[in-house]
Amino acid sequence: MKTLKIVKIGGNIINDTNHLNAFLQKFSQLEGPKILVHGGGKLATEVARTMNIPVQMIDGRRITDAKTLDIVTMVYGGKINKNIVAILQKYSCNAIGFTGADGNTIQAKKRAVSAIDYGFVGDITHVNTEVLSLLIQNNITPIFSAITHDGSGQLLNTNADTIASEIAIGMTEKITTELYYCFEKPGVLADIEDENSVVEELSIEDYHTLKAQNLIYDGMLPKLDNCYHALYSNVSKVCIGNTEMLFNSEEKHTTLLIQ
Amino acid sequence: MKTLKIVKIGGNIINDTNHLNAFLQKFSQLEGPKILVHGGGKLATEVARTMNIPVQMIDGRRITDAKTLDIVTMVYGGKINKNIVAILQKYSCNAIGFTGADGNTIQAKKRAVSAIDYGFVGDITHVNTEVLSLLIQNNITPIFSAITHDGSGQLLNTNADTIASEIAIGMTEKITTELYYCFEKPGVLADIEDENSVVEELSIEDYHTLKAQNLIYDGMLPKLDNCYHALYSNVSKVCIGNTEMLFNSEEKHTTLLIQ
Repeated sequence: MKTLKIVKIGGNIINDTNHLNAFLQKFSQLEGPKILVHGGGKLATEVARTMNIPVQMIDGRRITDAKTLDIVTMVYGGKINKNIVAILQKYSCNAIGFTGADGNTIQAKKRAVSAIDYGFVGDITHVNTEVLSLLIQNNITPIFSAITHDGSGQLLNTNADTIASEIAIGMTEKITTELYYCFEKPGVLADIEDENSVVEELSIEDYHTLKAQNLIYDGMLPKLDNCYHALYSNVSKVCIGNTEMLFNSEEKHTTLLIQ
Repeated sequence: MKTLKIVKIGGNIINDTNHLNAFLQKFSQLEGPKILVHGGGKLATEVARTMNIPVQMIDGRRITDAKTLDIVTMVYGGKINKNIVAILQKYSCNAIGFTGADGNTIQAKKRAVSAIDYGFVGDITHVNTEVLSLLIQNNITPIFSAITHDGSGQLLNTNADTIASEIAIGMTEKITTELYYCFEKPGVLADIEDENSVVEELSIEDYHTLKAQNLIYDGMLPKLDNCYHALYSNVSKVCIGNTEMLFNSEEKHTTLLIQ
């Protein structure tokens, strides 16, 4: 049985046209079924500024009012997503762009207002695997932007890391899945200042230790929480590193382990 | 054998949230396989103005420089398309949003520069029917925004009427197709001032006569040229009118005839 790779890329690739193009060329040649998930924060911020729409961030999270949701839908679901699809077609990878509304693939619930009102932000409730299975069986590659819907006509801004892990988890009912988080570093670093300090295998115990020592912090915490959640939910393999880990087995990266 | 309906809607519906919502509710209940094609010109113009990007129109056609193409991709492929998909999901119509790049469904060629440089505008060269057939066989409804690609990574702004007719023509190799152009009038009018003057059946001879008498002019000419081209290319039925013609057989509209 083939293995489905779910690959998440972030701003460091998306914001650099040459890097993105080079990555997509290699990604197109990656064997077996695959799904790409992308964020795109910086460009959304630029477009919001050009349109004089205030950007509100709390703890690195974007507050998504109605106008910001429009920007996110235009930039993530439109410009970034469709350009990725067009470039992949150039490299003979038959891609189709998705939000969670397309094919009703990812349903979410608008986050309840507590101390902070995040606005139109979605927490994923369900991944429907039928359409995605149909497509990958037919050698089509779904490309997800970080948008879901609530089933009642409302689009919702949703964390791209979480979209990747929830798709990986959902698809385990159909196929063996592996999850790859690509970011600007070669993996989880034992010393944030030293790129040679990649932790090649990070057990859940190691993670808790590094967290307690404040050696892992900020944005890495929710990312790693997504990783371990995926491993505990039947995803076969979860790796973090730069994109080269996908194409070169010698490339250093972090593999997460729960036992 | 079932019949595939290709329905094109224009700015009069898209620019009016209530109208769009009411239309999509009815469209979701339309029986049999269907494909929706939408334009969205007015909103693109508004966003371009907000972003201080000049809007250049020549003879009602948008000149699409690189920045304008970004706007078109964001507005047509992002905001309008994804909101339509989310609303259709609400009404249990399993829609997926498309540009011609998605699934490599519509390839086009950048229009050659002659007296006018239209910029990133595409003339359709080929419709690939495999992905669309797979989806409609699986009860999925493709929703097309007016964007194609050149197969070399370039998105292209493309006339939505032409996208609708070329999909209808292309799909005839798989299924019987019907093409419905919905616009603000109840059909082709013998007297443009009188909405009761709908020509219920318009033969190609009648069309040439009305055109010679200047009773059909401007934007109706390319629309009707698309219609007759579709009829001459094996599309079984082509109609023009308001959206009610889709849902109510008593609703007056124009059916085009070539014999």
